[in-house]
Amino acid sequence: MSYVKDIICWKSGASVTDGTPAICEPGDFPEVHYDLSRLAKEFDRDKLSHGPSSLWRYWPLLPVDDPDNAATLGEGWTPIVQTPALGKALGSPQLVIKDEGRNPSGTFKDRGACVAATRLRELGIKTIVHNSSGNAGGAWGMYAKRAGLNCVNLLPNDVLPASLCQSVYSGADTILLDGEWKHSGPMVAEAVQKMGWFNVGTFKEPHRLEGKKTMGLEIAEQLGWTLPDVIVYPTGGGLGAVAIYKAFRELMTLGWLPKGPLPKLIVTQYAGCAPVVKAFEAGVDHADLWEDLDVPPGGLKSTRPPGDQALLKIIKETNGAAISVTTEDAIAATTQAIDLEGLFPCPEVGTSIEGLRKALAQGMVTSDEKALIMSTGSGLKSVPVFPTPKFRTVEAGGSLSP
Amino acid sequence: MSYVKDIICWKSGASVTDGTPAICEPGDFPEVHYDLSRLAKEFDRDKLSHGPSSLWRYWPLLPVDDPDNAATLGEGWTPIVQTPALGKALGSPQLVIKDEGRNPSGTFKDRGACVAATRLRELGIKTIVHNSSGNAGGAWGMYAKRAGLNCVNLLPNDVLPASLCQSVYSGADTILLDGEWKHSGPMVAEAVQKMGWFNVGTFKEPHRLEGKKTMGLEIAEQLGWTLPDVIVYPTGGGLGAVAIYKAFRELMTLGWLPKGPLPKLIVTQYAGCAPVVKAFEAGVDHADLWEDLDVPPGGLKSTRPPGDQALLKIIKETNGAAISVTTEDAIAATTQAIDLEGLFPCPEVGTSIEGLRKALAQGMVTSDEKALIMSTGSGLKSVPVFPTPKFRTVEAGGSLSP
Repeated sequence: MSYVKDIICWKSGASVTDGTPAICEPGDFPEVHYDLSRLAKEFDRDKLSHGPSSLWRYWPLLPVDDPDNAATLGEGWTPIVQTPALGKALGSPQLVIKDEGRNPSGTFKDRGACVAATRLRELGIKTIVHNSSGNAGGAWGMYAKRAGLNCVNLLPNDVLPASLCQSVYSGADTILLDGEWKHSGPMVAEAVQKMGWFNVGTFKEPHRLEGKKTMGLEIAEQLGWTLPDVIVYPTGGGLGAVAIYKAFRELMTLGWLPKGPLPKLIVTQYAGCAPVVKAFEAGVDHADLWEDLDVPPGGLKSTRPPGDQALLKIIKETNGAAISVTTEDAIAATTQAIDLEGLFPCPEVGTSIEGLRKALAQGMVTSDEKALIMSTGSGLKSVPVFPTPKFRTVEAGGSLSP
Repeated sequence: MSYVKDIICWKSGASVTDGTPAICEPGDFPEVHYDLSRLAKEFDRDKLSHGPSSLWRYWPLLPVDDPDNAATLGEGWTPIVQTPALGKALGSPQLVIKDEGRNPSGTFKDRGACVAATRLRELGIKTIVHNSSGNAGGAWGMYAKRAGLNCVNLLPNDVLPASLCQSVYSGADTILLDGEWKHSGPMVAEAVQKMGWFNVGTFKEPHRLEGKKTMGLEIAEQLGWTLPDVIVYPTGGGLGAVAIYKAFRELMTLGWLPKGPLPKLIVTQYAGCAPVVKAFEAGVDHADLWEDLDVPPGGLKSTRPPGDQALLKIIKETNGAAISVTTEDAIAATTQAIDLEGLFPCPEVGTSIEGLRKALAQGMVTSDEKALIMSTGSGLKSVPVFPTPKFRTVEAGGSLSP
C-alpha cells in the first residue's frame, strides 16, 4: 500500500536500505521520497476529512506498509488556537498557536515516535536506543511499549520527573547520564555497535522525520490549505522544523497546496544552548559544537544539532532567522502567555514567544504577517521549571474575600 | 440559536432562572432540558462529522446562545484507545479506554469549565468561585481567563503542583485551605452570600453538567452510534457519570441512538473517600458525609458527593455497582496499565482499572461484556503521586549494556 519510492541521504544522495543502521555522514541524514505523482492520481485531498482525527489521516504520506499496523494512542490532529490577546501584546495581531501539548505524552515527540515505532515493528526491529533530554524519552517509552519494541533511553541526570516516570513506567530501560550531556551521542553510538540495537536518535533514521512532518500537513489542512506567513519554532536538533518544511514541499508537489513562497522560518533557542543562532549570525552553513550548555531541565539541549545544515538552508531560503532568548525571558514569556490566553505551554515555547517579540522589534517579521507559534509541549511536562506560584491561605471557616 | 427549553431542578421540578444562584435543595440540582423534537427536525446526526474536532461539534445539545461565543482551547473529541493487553490481564478482552487526559489542562474538567465559562460570559457573570481538589481549579483558571471572567479557586493545601501552577499562572485568585477539606463547601457558600460571586461548584449550576455530557455524546458517536456494555468511572462528586447518562438518554430521545438498555455503570472510589460505595453497599438512596478523608493528592476528594442520589439511581437502573479500591491498589493498577499499553493515566483512573478487576472477579461484569474505562486525567497532573521510578546511572563514556 505504501507510496514510498526510496530513501536516500539528503545531501550525498546515497541510497539507504530501510531498517539498517544509518550510512549518511554527519550533517547529512536519510530522507524518504514518495511516488507523489501516483499518489496524486490515486488519492484525493478531500478524502482526508473522512480519515481519523489523528496523524494517521495522512497515511499515504507516511512510510508504513499498512496504516492498520499503527502503534497508535490517537496522536496528532492537535488544535490551532486563536491567541488574539497574546498577539496584541506582542504586536502580531493575527497570531495563532498550534498546541502540541495535546499529544499522548504531552509533546510533539509522540508524532515521530509513533510513526517510527510502527515502521520499525513492520521491519522486525527488536530493540531501539537513543539519547534524549527527556521528552523524546517519554514518548519513545510509551510508543515502544505500544509497538512491542524494547526501548533503551539515555537521559540527562536533570531529566524532569514527568518524562522520567513515562520512561520508567512504560518499561523502558532508563539510564541517566552522570556527566556532561555532549557525551551522550557517542555512548549511544558505542551501544549500537556493541549490542546491535537500532539508533532512533535525531536524524539517525528516516521515520521520525516523517512522523513529525504531519505537523506541517496539519497546519496546511487546518488553515484551509493555506500557509501562515511566519512559523516560529523552538529548536533543538532541528528535526521538527525540517519536517514541517518537507511537508509543505510535498503538498505543493502534489498540488494540494498552491505553489508559492514558504513561510519565514524563525527558529528560537535558549541563550545557553544556541548553536544554530550562532551559525546564523555568523552567516555560515553549519553549526559547531556548543561547549557550555546552560539551559533549564527539559528540551532544547542539542549541543551539536544534527539538522543544522538543512535548518540553516531553510532559514536562508525563507528569509527567516534564528534568535536566542535567555532562560529568564523565556519563562516570563511563558507565564505571560498563560495569563493572557489560558493556554499552558512548556517554557521551551517561551523562547518562541519572546523570539517573535524580538523578531518584530528588529523588523524581521511585520505586524501584518500571520505568525504561527508551534507550542511543542505542555507545561505539565515542566512543572518544576516554573517559578514558585503565589497564593493565599485561609483557615477552615475563614473568609475568601480578598 | 439555542435549543434550550427550560432549566428545572432534577428532583423537585422547580424552575431555575439561568445565571441566578442555585435554588435546588441539597441532593437536587438544576438540569437543562432541550426542545429535542425541534432539534431532531432541524439537525441531522450525520452533520456532526462535518463539525469541529472538539466538543463544540455538539453545539445543538449545549446551552449556549451561539457556538461562535465559545471560549475554546480545542477541548474534547478525545480518542478511545484500544487496550487489548490490559483487557487480557483484567479478563475483559474487549476493553477500551477513553483518554480524557488529552484535554487542554489534562483532565475531563475542561469540558464543564469550557461550556459553563462560555455560557456565564453570555449571561454577563463577572466572578466565579468554587472549591476544587485541584483539577477543576486548573481547568477553571484557564477557561475563566479564556472567557474573561474573574476566577476564585479554593483548593486543598495538598493540591498538586501542576494544578496549582495552572490556577495561579492563569490569573485565578488562588486560595489554599489550611484545614479539613469538608469545610470548603460552606466557605464558598459564605463567599457567594457576601461577595455576590457565582458558585460553579459541582451541581451548583447547570452548565458544567452539559459540558461533561459531551463525554457521553462522543462515546456514542466514536463507537459508531452504539454503546459499550459497561462504563467504569472514577467518581468524586458524581457530575461526570450523571452527565454521560444524560447524554445517552437525550440521544435515544432524538433517535440518534437505538433505544435499549443503558450500559452498566460501575463507579469507583478510593477506600479513603467512598461515600457512594458505602451507600450502595447499604442499599440506600443517598450518601452521608464521609468523615475521615484519606486519599492521595488529586481528585476524588468529595466527602459529600452532591450527585449521590442521581448516581445511585443510575447504578440501580443499570444493574451497576460502586466499588472502593485502596490507594496502593489503585496506584499499582495505574502503573500496570502504563506498562501494558503505553498510556499514561492519573492514579484516580487506577481505581477504575482495579475496580473493573474486582467487578469481574465478583461476577458483576462478565468477560464477554464490552467495557469502557473513562481515563479522566493524565498522569502528568499527578507525577508526585507515582512511586519513585527506578533507573540505572552511567558515567560519561560508560557502557549502556545491561
